[in-house]
Amino acid sequence: ESSAAESLGTSSSAAGSRGVGVDVEMVSAINIENDTFLERNFTQQEIDYCLSRPDPQSSFAGRWSAKEAVVKAVSSFSLETEKVWTQGAGAGLKEIEIVMAESGAPSVVFSGAAEEAARKAGVKEMKVSISHSGAYAVAVANAL
Amino acid sequence: ESSAAESLGTSSSAAGSRGVGVDVEMVSAINIENDTFLERNFTQQEIDYCLSRPDPQSSFAGRWSAKEAVVKAVSSFSLETEKVWTQGAGAGLKEIEIVMAESGAPSVVFSGAAEEAARKAGVKEMKVSISHSGAYAVAVANAL
Amino acid sequence: ESSAAESLGTSSSAAGSRGVGVDVEMVSAINIENDTFLERNFTQQEIDYCLSRPDPQSSFAGRWSAKEAVVKAVSSFSLETEKVWTQGAGAGLKEIEIVMAESGAPSVVFSGAAEEAARKAGVKEMKVSISHSGAYAVAVANAL
Repeated sequence: ESSAAESLGTSSSAAGSRGVGVDVEMVSAINIENDTFLERNFTQQEIDYCLSRPDPQSSFAGRWSAKEAVVKAVSSFSLETEKVWTQGAGAGLKEIEIVMAESGAPSVVFSGAAEEAARKAGVKEMKVSISHSGAYAVAVANAL
Repeated sequence: ESSAAESLGTSSSAAGSRGVGVDVEMVSAINIENDTFLERNFTQQEIDYCLSRPDPQSSFAGRWSAKEAVVKAVSSFSLETEKVWTQGAGAGLKEIEIVMAESGAPSVVFSGAAEEAARKAGVKEMKVSISHSGAYAVAVANAL
Repeated sequence: ESSAAESLGTSSSAAGSRGVGVDVEMVSAINIENDTFLERNFTQQEIDYCLSRPDPQSSFAGRWSAKEAVVKAVSSFSLETEKVWTQGAGAGLKEIEIVMAESGAPSVVFSGAAEEAARKAGVKEMKVSISHSGAYAVAVANAL
């Protein structure tokens, strides 16, 4: 009850809760030769998609950034609640799947513990965008 | 009808549709000596503005990122609809003009096919922000 | 009254005003040996936090990015109003404090002239996210 919203004289609920997440990653930090890493964090559909792209490592880095941005947006959604991501850094990110929507934009599909965490935080919708250029990948997620 | 919103048990419309777009660009990738490129993608007002800045190439890169982020935010707004940006990568981005608002923040003015695409997707408002530092420019757009 | 929202045929107020801010910074641009700079822009709590992190310079750069993103999001919130950030580049950013919320996400606490500026612009809630990797720090802020 001491969030920025309070200091601005309104409760979070007045404006509707929202959450934002950003993540930047060096493309070189993603080791796509590491099968264990890939299988813990990416679905088979994501792996197939990234491997089919002109620059697989950048595509994996972009999806990794997107997953991290989604985790952050869930945590940002409801600041007063306890940590929703309780599995810590060791948790695989496979349960946050990035798929391509009809419109051409990426879309987020939650499953398992990640779906439970998002639901518990009160998230109703998640939008994400991904970009990479040169040595970096960046993603931004908005939770509604 | 199989978006993340559904998997979280609510329809997109319940939360109000939103869209997000992010774009990162290496400043060096923007060739400001290429008049054809500039004239296809920037209005005369944008060109004059960028050339008046301390680092014109970074300014052009930032505006280019902003236009790309806007395209992504439109595509992200309504995931279930078909691709709204049908002209493909060859389309010029002049119809998404970045101007300076009274407040000092950048503002988006759509025209022509871009305005039609945004309207078709259901976008009512577009907010964008731009930054550059060192070798990179980044922009984020939110569609409402 | 000539914003993008108007060109899309709806007023800003119809969709609810929003603002977005992004900022990218080279970590090397932040001089954490400069006490005057640190004391003008960071609270003692922020300084203690950043110094306790594995990579203090990246942490300071991330918080600096977050403060800049917040300033931009306030300016983006209400495009038609005059500049709310009247102190210019010389103003310290200490009055935009980044604290850690219960959820693990960063939270914004305004005070002094910054709180007044945000209030005057009509901002009810501010959400921010921070990331750094390699040579860069990035932050995104959403104003509601």
